[in-house]
Amino acid sequence: MRIGIDLGGTNIAAGLVDEKPGIVLQNSVKTPQGAKAAAQEMAVLAHSLCAEAGIRLQDIESVGIGSPGAIDSRSGMVVYSNNLEYSNVPLAAMLSEQIGLPVRIGNDANAAALGEYHGGAGRRAAAGNDTTPPFSSMILVTLGTGVGGGIIVNGRIYDGFNGMGGEVGHMVIEVDGASCTCGRNGCWEAYASATGLIRLTKKAMECHPDSLMHSITAEKGKISGRTAFLAARKGDPAGDAVVETYCKYLAIGTANLINLFQPAMFCFGGGVSNEGQLLIDRLRPLLAPELYTVGDKRTSLCLAQLGNAAGIIGAALL
Amino acid sequence: MRIGIDLGGTNIAAGLVDEKPGIVLQNSVKTPQGAKAAAQEMAVLAHSLCAEAGIRLQDIESVGIGSPGAIDSRSGMVVYSNNLEYSNVPLAAMLSEQIGLPVRIGNDANAAALGEYHGGAGRRAAAGNDTTPPFSSMILVTLGTGVGGGIIVNGRIYDGFNGMGGEVGHMVIEVDGASCTCGRNGCWEAYASATGLIRLTKKAMECHPDSLMHSITAEKGKISGRTAFLAARKGDPAGDAVVETYCKYLAIGTANLINLFQPAMFCFGGGVSNEGQLLIDRLRPLLAPELYTVGDKRTSLCLAQLGNAAGIIGAALL
Repeated sequence: MRIGIDLGGTNIAAGLVDEKPGIVLQNSVKTPQGAKAAAQEMAVLAHSLCAEAGIRLQDIESVGIGSPGAIDSRSGMVVYSNNLEYSNVPLAAMLSEQIGLPVRIGNDANAAALGEYHGGAGRRAAAGNDTTPPFSSMILVTLGTGVGGGIIVNGRIYDGFNGMGGEVGHMVIEVDGASCTCGRNGCWEAYASATGLIRLTKKAMECHPDSLMHSITAEKGKISGRTAFLAARKGDPAGDAVVETYCKYLAIGTANLINLFQPAMFCFGGGVSNEGQLLIDRLRPLLAPELYTVGDKRTSLCLAQLGNAAGIIGAALL
Repeated sequence: MRIGIDLGGTNIAAGLVDEKPGIVLQNSVKTPQGAKAAAQEMAVLAHSLCAEAGIRLQDIESVGIGSPGAIDSRSGMVVYSNNLEYSNVPLAAMLSEQIGLPVRIGNDANAAALGEYHGGAGRRAAAGNDTTPPFSSMILVTLGTGVGGGIIVNGRIYDGFNGMGGEVGHMVIEVDGASCTCGRNGCWEAYASATGLIRLTKKAMECHPDSLMHSITAEKGKISGRTAFLAARKGDPAGDAVVETYCKYLAIGTANLINLFQPAMFCFGGGVSNEGQLLIDRLRPLLAPELYTVGDKRTSLCLAQLGNAAGIIGAALL
């Protein structure tokens, strides 16, 4: 049994992860201020999970933390996290000291990709092929408030020589384009995130006062990443045009990544991926002409299976 | 001793490559029409190199071919090459049959990256650190008629699950941007190649009839990728502005690749890289704000050392 800890800006979620790998027991607490307090809370979570499962902490195979920010997994440091306000924090060692077990740490988006690969979409695909991961490589892209993600090569996280690689959302696809939360302009995130989709939706609603998107917004109480997709499903032309434009931007960044990495699988997670097969069906024809792949070995597009559990499972596998 | 073969659209260049790795003997012939004739020519080259060096073909450690196009290195196939007009050609097996030795095949740009890593810029950097490659990872980007390149991870070519990865030049950096030779729009190649630089230069010359670029063009007989750099070195404002704009586009794509791969080294080759330290010096301040790297472990920028020899050396190391 392993322990995976998903350290977020709001909550710390920890789980006992079995061989499957899947979560057998889970618990969470509010994230306290400061790394020392966070390490203590993680230790308490680890102890309480073991107590509840009736196993001893020293029988845990491995403990991993997925943390936001720039992580040096080799030295176990949170080099910098804007979200947590950490700078050069040796978080792995701090937790290790508390629980007397070695602790690994990695970026949370990378951990989620690892979890999805070994316990979610990757595992499902592998089952169909009567084999188990690591069968090959996968990119997970999460389409949420931002665009995060992780790159899996030969069953392991690919994060470069300094542990900071795999920054898929902040690839510029439009020089001098839309401003991004990161301070740059034209990042993929500014277009392919739910935030980017909402921006497109608002603009289209202004231009099309007759669009179904207005009544959907009135009904739901707000404009969201779902508004245009809901309208498109009901045949609304303006909603459909928003979906088409969004999927075009999604296709450009996806193609850039596939042409660079040629992963066996390309997996979409995050809020927008809840649009499911419609998203994939709309994306596919826009993606095909952008790909350099020739022959039969083509990247499979798929949807993430695990949701938030991916982060805990992946952290346990670090 | 190894044999490396650089199969081009115009010439086939082959070399005997030693342990250093460096080329000890080299020869080339015109590329004949058709794969069968090409395999025969390669066999003749291999025999003649061995004869000239006074060694037996069967004492050759390995034989590798760098070929343009989409290569499946696992099956030894040229899946498709527009340049050579090959489609599903088992070229490795065809040469192997001729010479009675196993033959490896890879994409020519990837082979050049491998050669530069083990025998050129990578080797030089490693020497400074008192270690030998594979010390880590490197991206080579060649700024020529197009933008090619290759990605080295842990001392090996990274080319994805189907051997077609590492397509660095055809990453879109401008949605609906300048048309690219590949049929897409806005590829990095359309901006960062010598061709893109020449386009920028021509445009600036039209707007600035007083620019030094006109007299430089008259003197050299044509507009080239050097024109704006030569003018900028002489203090010409319009030439300087072209160099700045070119380096901005170069920085965007370079940043995208560094943020994704975080390689230990990022190496520039091809015609434009002959601008040397000026290119690096102009690029650096434009690149810095685009990088997500925090802390001290930062990608080193460097210039390719081997020129065309990289392809032969890399092919020998496949």
